[in-house]
Amino acid sequence: MSSSCFERQRRGAGSGLLFVIAGPSGAGKDTLIDGAMSRLPHLAHSISHTTRAPRPGEIDGTHYFFLSIERFLREIEENEFLEHAVYVGDHYGTSRTHVQSLIAEGNDVLLDIDVQGAAILREADLSGCQVVTVFVMPSTLAQLGERLRCRGSDSEEKIRQRLETAEEEVKRIPEYDYLVINNQLDDAVAEVCGIIVAERARVVRPTTACR
Amino acid sequence: MSSSCFERQRRGAGSGLLFVIAGPSGAGKDTLIDGAMSRLPHLAHSISHTTRAPRPGEIDGTHYFFLSIERFLREIEENEFLEHAVYVGDHYGTSRTHVQSLIAEGNDVLLDIDVQGAAILREADLSGCQVVTVFVMPSTLAQLGERLRCRGSDSEEKIRQRLETAEEEVKRIPEYDYLVINNQLDDAVAEVCGIIVAERARVVRPTTACR
Repeated sequence: MSSSCFERQRRGAGSGLLFVIAGPSGAGKDTLIDGAMSRLPHLAHSISHTTRAPRPGEIDGTHYFFLSIERFLREIEENEFLEHAVYVGDHYGTSRTHVQSLIAEGNDVLLDIDVQGAAILREADLSGCQVVTVFVMPSTLAQLGERLRCRGSDSEEKIRQRLETAEEEVKRIPEYDYLVINNQLDDAVAEVCGIIVAERARVVRPTTACR
Repeated sequence: MSSSCFERQRRGAGSGLLFVIAGPSGAGKDTLIDGAMSRLPHLAHSISHTTRAPRPGEIDGTHYFFLSIERFLREIEENEFLEHAVYVGDHYGTSRTHVQSLIAEGNDVLLDIDVQGAAILREADLSGCQVVTVFVMPSTLAQLGERLRCRGSDSEEKIRQRLETAEEEVKRIPEYDYLVINNQLDDAVAEVCGIIVAERARVVRPTTACR
C-alpha cells in the first residue's frame, strides 16, 4: 500500500477548496486572511477585479485588478466572473480564470467578498470544487461601530449607513457554514486556521471530490 | 442587541459535541487526545467501562471504570451504554450517564473507541447532540507496524493480528467525517484541535441544535 494511499482519502492542503470570507465592513476580514496566510501553507488570496479608479498607493494586481467598464462588461458576457456586483457605482467581480490559476498552482483560495457575493458563489458552477463559507463579525453591532470609528476613514453618516447594512447582513448568518466572532484577533485567526485545517482533513466522499 | 446574540448562532465551546476518535491500535489516539485537552478548554475525555481486571497501576475512574460482568450485563439491559463490545473476552462500553454528566459540566466530549463502536455511536440516540467522527492513522500500515514494534508490548504474532485488524478498519475510513494522518505528532495534534475549533464555530441550524 503506497504512502499516499490513506492521504488520498482526505481532501488535503491545496486541493482547491474555496474559502469565502464574508462579513460587514470593519469586521476584520483582511486582517484575518493575512493572519491565516502567514500561518498556513498552500493558501492564496484571490484579488478582485474592479472598474473603480485606483486610489493613491494601490497597485494593479496586488490590491485589485483595475479594468475599464467596457472590458468588465465584456467579461460579464463571457461568463468570466464567478460573482460580480455594483457597489457605489463601481463594478467588482471575482474572476473565474484568476481563481482557477491559483488552484492550478496548488492552493486553496481565500475569497474576501461581500454578503451578496457569497450567496451567489455558494450556488456558482465551480467544477465540483468545494466552497466553504465563513461569516466574520465582532460580538455586537456596537463593537462594529466602535471599530469603524477607530479606523477614522468614514464620516459619521457613512458609519451609520455601514451599520444599517451590517444589520441586514447578519440576518443571513444562518446561510453560512461557519461563524467566526472576531473580538480577539489571535483567537479569530486561530479559528479561521482551524476551519481551513479541518476542511483539509475532511474525508473525501464521491460527491465532494474536487477536480 | 445583546453581546451573546451572534455567538448563539454558532455551536460554541462546551455545547455538548461528541468527538469520536477512532483508529487502529498504535495509531496514537490517546496521545492526540491528551494533546488536544492540554491545548483547548471545555474538553473532557470519556472513560470507558470494562469487565476486564485492572492491570498493575490502573486506577478505577481514571483509566477505566471497572465493574463486574453481572453489573455490566444489567447496565446493557437498562440501555445504559451508548455502545458496547466484546474484545478478547472482556466487555467494554461507553456509559450514557457518564457522557451526559461531562456534557452537563459544560464540556465537549472526546471518546476514544474502536472502529466498531464508532459505527454504532454514529447511529446512537444522543438527544440531538452532534457526533463528529475522526479516524486516526499513520500514512501507511507499514508505519503502524513499526510503531507497534517500537512500543514493545506485543508479540510478533499479536502485532500481525493487529495489522490484519487495521487493514479491515481502514476500509471504513469513508464512513468518517475527518481523517487525521498521524505522522508528526505536533501536526496531528494541531489537526485534531483544528477540527474541534472548526466544529465549535459551525453555524447552528435548527436540525443540528444540541440540547
